[in-house]
Amino acid sequence: MFQVFPTARLRPSPFFHSAMAEGCTSASIYNRMILPASFGDKEKEYSDLMNGVVMWDVGVERQVQLEGPDAAKLAQILSPRDLSKCKVGQGKYVPMCNHDGILINDPILLKLHEDLYWFSIADSDIWFWARAIAAERRLDVKISEPDVSPLAVQGPMAETVVASIFGDWVRDLKYFWFKETELNGIPLAVQRSGWSKQGGFEIYLRDGSRGTELWNIVKQAGLLYNIGNGGPTSPERTESGLVSCGSDTDDTTNPYEVRLGKYVDLNLPDDVVGIEALRRIHAEGPKRHQLGLVLDGDSSDPLSFHWEDITVGGQKVGDMTNCIWSPRMQKNIGYALISKKCNIGDTVVLARSNQRKVNAQLVDLPFY
Amino acid sequence: MFQVFPTARLRPSPFFHSAMAEGCTSASIYNRMILPASFGDKEKEYSDLMNGVVMWDVGVERQVQLEGPDAAKLAQILSPRDLSKCKVGQGKYVPMCNHDGILINDPILLKLHEDLYWFSIADSDIWFWARAIAAERRLDVKISEPDVSPLAVQGPMAETVVASIFGDWVRDLKYFWFKETELNGIPLAVQRSGWSKQGGFEIYLRDGSRGTELWNIVKQAGLLYNIGNGGPTSPERTESGLVSCGSDTDDTTNPYEVRLGKYVDLNLPDDVVGIEALRRIHAEGPKRHQLGLVLDGDSSDPLSFHWEDITVGGQKVGDMTNCIWSPRMQKNIGYALISKKCNIGDTVVLARSNQRKVNAQLVDLPFY
Repeated sequence: MFQVFPTARLRPSPFFHSAMAEGCTSASIYNRMILPASFGDKEKEYSDLMNGVVMWDVGVERQVQLEGPDAAKLAQILSPRDLSKCKVGQGKYVPMCNHDGILINDPILLKLHEDLYWFSIADSDIWFWARAIAAERRLDVKISEPDVSPLAVQGPMAETVVASIFGDWVRDLKYFWFKETELNGIPLAVQRSGWSKQGGFEIYLRDGSRGTELWNIVKQAGLLYNIGNGGPTSPERTESGLVSCGSDTDDTTNPYEVRLGKYVDLNLPDDVVGIEALRRIHAEGPKRHQLGLVLDGDSSDPLSFHWEDITVGGQKVGDMTNCIWSPRMQKNIGYALISKKCNIGDTVVLARSNQRKVNAQLVDLPFY
Repeated sequence: MFQVFPTARLRPSPFFHSAMAEGCTSASIYNRMILPASFGDKEKEYSDLMNGVVMWDVGVERQVQLEGPDAAKLAQILSPRDLSKCKVGQGKYVPMCNHDGILINDPILLKLHEDLYWFSIADSDIWFWARAIAAERRLDVKISEPDVSPLAVQGPMAETVVASIFGDWVRDLKYFWFKETELNGIPLAVQRSGWSKQGGFEIYLRDGSRGTELWNIVKQAGLLYNIGNGGPTSPERTESGLVSCGSDTDDTTNPYEVRLGKYVDLNLPDDVVGIEALRRIHAEGPKRHQLGLVLDGDSSDPLSFHWEDITVGGQKVGDMTNCIWSPRMQKNIGYALISKKCNIGDTVVLARSNQRKVNAQLVDLPFY
C-alpha cells in the first residue's frame, strides 16, 4: 500500500508516540486521527486478545460533549433509544440516525452528570450533526470535543491487569458503566467496554499531556501477564459480530438492517431525530438484513476497499460489506447486507476481485 | 511513518488503481477517501507543477449535491456569500460557517441548473451539516453524494493539454466557471479550477466506472508535454497562500481570521447560517489574523501533526499552523494564526519539536 504523511489535518492521539516507539507498522484513519492497528505480527495480536491481554490506542474514539441545561434534552433528541432511566455513571449503546432513519453513527453514550454527557463516537462527524440540531432548535447546550482519549485493555486477563492498577472496584463495573477516578493525579474515567467480545475496559485519559505516562503505567502493570500491543482486530470483531459503522453500513442503511433494531424505542416523542422515519421503516419491514457469510476456499482473501456484489442466479441480492480470514474457523468469513428474500442456509455467489466467483453460505450472526 | 490498510471505511477514487499502477508512494486521507500525494520524487513533482503540467487524482474533493425546489434556498442558507447573481455554469468559492460564525469548510459552489447545485468540499462532513439544516427547516431538497470525482490538470501547460483534449473553448472559461460535456461518451464537467496558483482545470468525472479511461486519455494527451504525476503540494500551496481548511483552521477559527472575510456578505438575510455571528465578529473585530512566517535556518524542517506555539517574550501569541520547505525561497515558510497585536515585520519565536526554539519573521501572505 502507501505511506501516510504528517499533516495538521490528521491528528495523533496522546498515545501515538508510545505506539510508534513500540513499532506500530500499520494504521487507519478514524475521526481524522491515526488509529494504530498492527505492530507487525497479527497472529500474535489476535492470540494475545483471545488468550491473554492487549492494550490498544483507541484515542480516535472521540467524545462529543454535551454540557448545559439542555444537555439531557439534546442527548435524547439525538438518540432513538430511551435514555430516561440512564443513571450517572452509566453508558448506553445508541444507534444514532438522521431524519430519514438512516444510521449515521453508533456511539456509546456516557452520562457523567445530570447536565453533562459524552457520545463516544464511531467514525463520523457528530459534532457537526449535534451542533446543527442544537442551534436550529435553539437549545441551551454547549457542544465540544473535550481533551479525552480512550486507551483500551482487552482480553480475558484485562480485568486482572486493570484491577491491579485501580483496585478491585473495577471488577464490579457492569457493562458500559464507568467511574471517574485518577491515578498519580492523571484524571481518568474507567469503563467496562471495548471493541471486542473478549472482555475488558477503556480508560478515558482526560489530560492529553499525560498519554505516555498512562501508557507506561498500563504497560508496566501488564508485564506480568505479557500484555501485547495491537489494535482493534478485524478477525475478532467479525467472528464476534460487531458492527463497524461506515464499513458495514452505507448512506441508506437503517438500524433494523444491521441488527440494531433492539436499541430503538419507537414510543419516544416525535422530537427525537429520525423516530418518525424509524416507525415507518419498522411498520413496512426492512428490505435487507445482515447475515454472516462463510466463503468456500482455504486461503486468506480479505475484502479490500469496496463492498462486493452478492448474487443468486446472476441477480444481485446484496453486498458483502466485510470479509476476513477467521483464525478460529479457518475460513474466510464476512457480513452480508442482503435482501430479506435470502436466508440462513442459502448458498450465494460472491463477485470477488479479478472477476472471480466464489460460493458462500449464509449463516447467523455472530459467528461466536 | 506507517502503512494504511484497506477497509471499506476508506474509499479509493475511480483513479486510484491508475495512481497506484504509476507508483504512488504516499497519500493522505481526505473525506474518508485516499488522496494520492507523491510518487516518490517531490522535487520533480514541484518542478512539473511550476514549469510544465501535472495530473492529480483529487477524487477526494467530493460533491455535496443539492437538488429540488429548495436547492437554491438551501445553498444560500449554507453560504454567507451572496449567491443571488450566480449563474448556471458558474462556480464560487464559499467560506461555510456554523451558527457561531466558525469556518467549517471552504467549498467551491457549482450551479449546474436552477435547482441543482454542488458544493465541491474540503475535508469535513457537509452532507451531515446540510441534511441537518435542511431537515430541521423542512426544506424540499434532496442532499446526496453523486458519482462525481475530479481529476486535476495543473501547471502553466495545463491549458494547452486540456484544450488538446476538449477543444479551444476551454481557454474561454473564466475562473471557477465550468461546462458540462462528454468525451468518448464519458460524462464530465470541465472547470477552470484547482488547488494551486499555477493555473489549470479540474475535470469532474461523472461515471466512476470510467476513471481509468479518463486517466489514460489525459495521460496520453499530456505525453507531448511530459505530464507528471503528483498531488496537491504543500510547498506550492504555502508559497501561494492557499488556505487548507482543517489544517490552518481549528474549532474556533472564523473567516476573518484566515483572509476569507472578503467572501462574506453581511447584508444577507438572517436565515443564512452564521450571518448574525459573523456580523458580531466583524463589528468587534477579529482577535487573530493569518500572516506568513519565514523561519531562520537553511534545512527542511516541516511541521508534523501538531500546530506549534508562537511566542513573544515568552508569552504565547499564536500558533504556527503550517510549515514547509520552500523551493523558491530556500527557507522554511509557514502560516501564523496570531494575535492582531503582532504584525508584519515582527520577529517571533517558534516552539519546534524537541524543545528547539527558532526565530521567524512575520510577513504578508501570499509569499508569491
